[in-house]
Amino acid sequence: MSAFAAPVPDQVPLPPGFRAGGVHCGLKKNGDPDLGILLADQPVEAAAVFTRSRLLGAHIEVCRDHLARSNGMVRAVLVNARNANCATGRQGVEDARACCRELATRLRCPTEQVLMASTGPIGAPLPTDRIVSHLDALLARASADRGIEFARAIMTTDTHAKVAHWHLAQAEATGFAKGAGMIHPDMATMLAFLLTDARTGAAGTMEALLRRVADRSFHRLTIDGDTSPNDTLLLLASGRTAADAGEVETALTRIGSRLARQIAADGEGATRLVTVQVRGATTEEQAVHVGRTIATSPLVKTAIAGRDPNWGRILSAAARAGVAFPSESCRVWIGSTDVFAGGKPLPGNEPAAHRHLSEEREVVLGIDLTIGTANADVWTCDLTAAYVQINADYRT
Amino acid sequence: MSAFAAPVPDQVPLPPGFRAGGVHCGLKKNGDPDLGILLADQPVEAAAVFTRSRLLGAHIEVCRDHLARSNGMVRAVLVNARNANCATGRQGVEDARACCRELATRLRCPTEQVLMASTGPIGAPLPTDRIVSHLDALLARASADRGIEFARAIMTTDTHAKVAHWHLAQAEATGFAKGAGMIHPDMATMLAFLLTDARTGAAGTMEALLRRVADRSFHRLTIDGDTSPNDTLLLLASGRTAADAGEVETALTRIGSRLARQIAADGEGATRLVTVQVRGATTEEQAVHVGRTIATSPLVKTAIAGRDPNWGRILSAAARAGVAFPSESCRVWIGSTDVFAGGKPLPGNEPAAHRHLSEEREVVLGIDLTIGTANADVWTCDLTAAYVQINADYRT
Repeated sequence: MSAFAAPVPDQVPLPPGFRAGGVHCGLKKNGDPDLGILLADQPVEAAAVFTRSRLLGAHIEVCRDHLARSNGMVRAVLVNARNANCATGRQGVEDARACCRELATRLRCPTEQVLMASTGPIGAPLPTDRIVSHLDALLARASADRGIEFARAIMTTDTHAKVAHWHLAQAEATGFAKGAGMIHPDMATMLAFLLTDARTGAAGTMEALLRRVADRSFHRLTIDGDTSPNDTLLLLASGRTAADAGEVETALTRIGSRLARQIAADGEGATRLVTVQVRGATTEEQAVHVGRTIATSPLVKTAIAGRDPNWGRILSAAARAGVAFPSESCRVWIGSTDVFAGGKPLPGNEPAAHRHLSEEREVVLGIDLTIGTANADVWTCDLTAAYVQINADYRT
Repeated sequence: MSAFAAPVPDQVPLPPGFRAGGVHCGLKKNGDPDLGILLADQPVEAAAVFTRSRLLGAHIEVCRDHLARSNGMVRAVLVNARNANCATGRQGVEDARACCRELATRLRCPTEQVLMASTGPIGAPLPTDRIVSHLDALLARASADRGIEFARAIMTTDTHAKVAHWHLAQAEATGFAKGAGMIHPDMATMLAFLLTDARTGAAGTMEALLRRVADRSFHRLTIDGDTSPNDTLLLLASGRTAADAGEVETALTRIGSRLARQIAADGEGATRLVTVQVRGATTEEQAVHVGRTIATSPLVKTAIAGRDPNWGRILSAAARAGVAFPSESCRVWIGSTDVFAGGKPLPGNEPAAHRHLSEEREVVLGIDLTIGTANADVWTCDLTAAYVQINADYRT
């Protein structure tokens, strides 16, 4: 899969005032970095969106508590891979808090200005000693040019690091994400971090902003319909640089969408990045709902794996989304080719649709419901035998 | 998969007054029977439950119309495989009606006393000539001892025929089903037929009865989360024999459950029949909802394929069902072995759970939510690389 993903740059610029880095503390067996840090020179404003699962990773309770006590001000975010610190009870929460406290001591800041995020298999105690004993090395490593190292440290089954960057007129914005399985709204990704030096407004505004960004980016992504208990999206904004509010939202939404598409392209076992285009819905929310139903259909996803321009499965999936639309007027396309229109299949067009699925690595499916004017795109990947293999063998 | 399914009997008894049979009319390439009939000596009372998809196979409109016009009285049901007659527009409805009319002429009964059901790929016109030209042979074939032939005629990707029979104190009940993919509530199967000579009460009562039966059998089954546009469950009751209403409902529910479990066991590519037991929910409906969420999780289903006693995926799936339950008191088991209890994993028990998944062909997963006293079982199968292969290559 990494074969077709956009090449990962050697460097990703961080907004002024931010540093990042990663070290290997012994969680990944192959020696790759597994402990990362995002560091702000001064406390910056933060907002977060967490999983809606009823099972919560321990770091989520700690993040919520720290953000409440710090009034949304954050100095550093510590992230470990290969251990989700989830279903670990009260001890898990104490462990996450201890890691934050140890890092805060070294930064000479209040404990609540440090956040933590964990990702990986659930149920094992967090190896706090191992993490704490590498904090000095991690802090020494953090610099303005090691964003990529952080992106690598948070990878689990990802095959490539996920970064995106956007220049605003005055300011900068950078995003990081990880995730390749157990990916579904809401949240749609396990961990994602957005950094900017732009001024985003008051703390309340910032959370609403982040929620809008998530709704139009990560929440439109699904790999396998499984929501993780650890999903976390954090926005850190130093506010050093004035910026137009609309421009900031656009930049963050584009970064979020790029990261979401990178995650879809890196879906476990995936060979195709799939964009599901829903057109002609009554509301944008309805378009997203129909798009998600198509994007989570195993029959649609296996058809893509088989390069089969199977309009019937797309139409059937849309039809079970609970939205009434006339099959006589609706239209289904693959790539730029209609495969169903006017209530009838267009078998003569299937060869062109097959070529699109066979030759393109980023493929498009679409349906026009013809009941309104609202549109939405949803991203997913194909479902291959390799996905099954990866997840059948994950722990063994 | 058929390797472990219960052996299909050579014969299945039909209730008195019913005949069945099947012929090959040229829809299946391998020469197997592809056109089946269920025939009652006299018109019998009927009730139906259809798919909730917004895309409907043509036969569903015809069935609804005929049942309304015949006041729920049915003489015969004609079923073809390998062509769903779906997304075929007005012509599809006319085609289905023509088949019913031709059969009714031969039976010297009103057209509306004949129903039809179709299953297979969607979008191709129904080959009515081929079907009609085989009706005489089909009628000649119908007999009291050819239930199995009917069961074979309605198979598509099924690897074995699905039948179940129940002796009531006085009466008999027999069920047939087909389905191996695109299986999900509601309906949970593509086609299923229940026959009984028992008296079931008035037509309105009978439909309510069938809905209760479906809710506790076919609606608790999921293969891949994809609902088909053709799903149809028909109950034909001759009412010849007096029977206790409770006994009839129990018998039909057991037959439905057995058929649903046969469908799960024959899920495309499946190697395990999985029973998901949800205990300690607030309501039965809630228990079913949590069970379905677990049973549709690709991560749970691939773990079973890998014989991985992955309690974390079971717990995570339950946690995203939108039902709040305390992870501290909840319990997760595999087979008869607890793998998570008291807020903690029990790694010492995983070898026994692994043995259950490795050695049994019918496996059990369970969770006690500890928030109430309602229970439900949901049936599914594991998700294997073979499922992907079958569905990637279905049309090619």
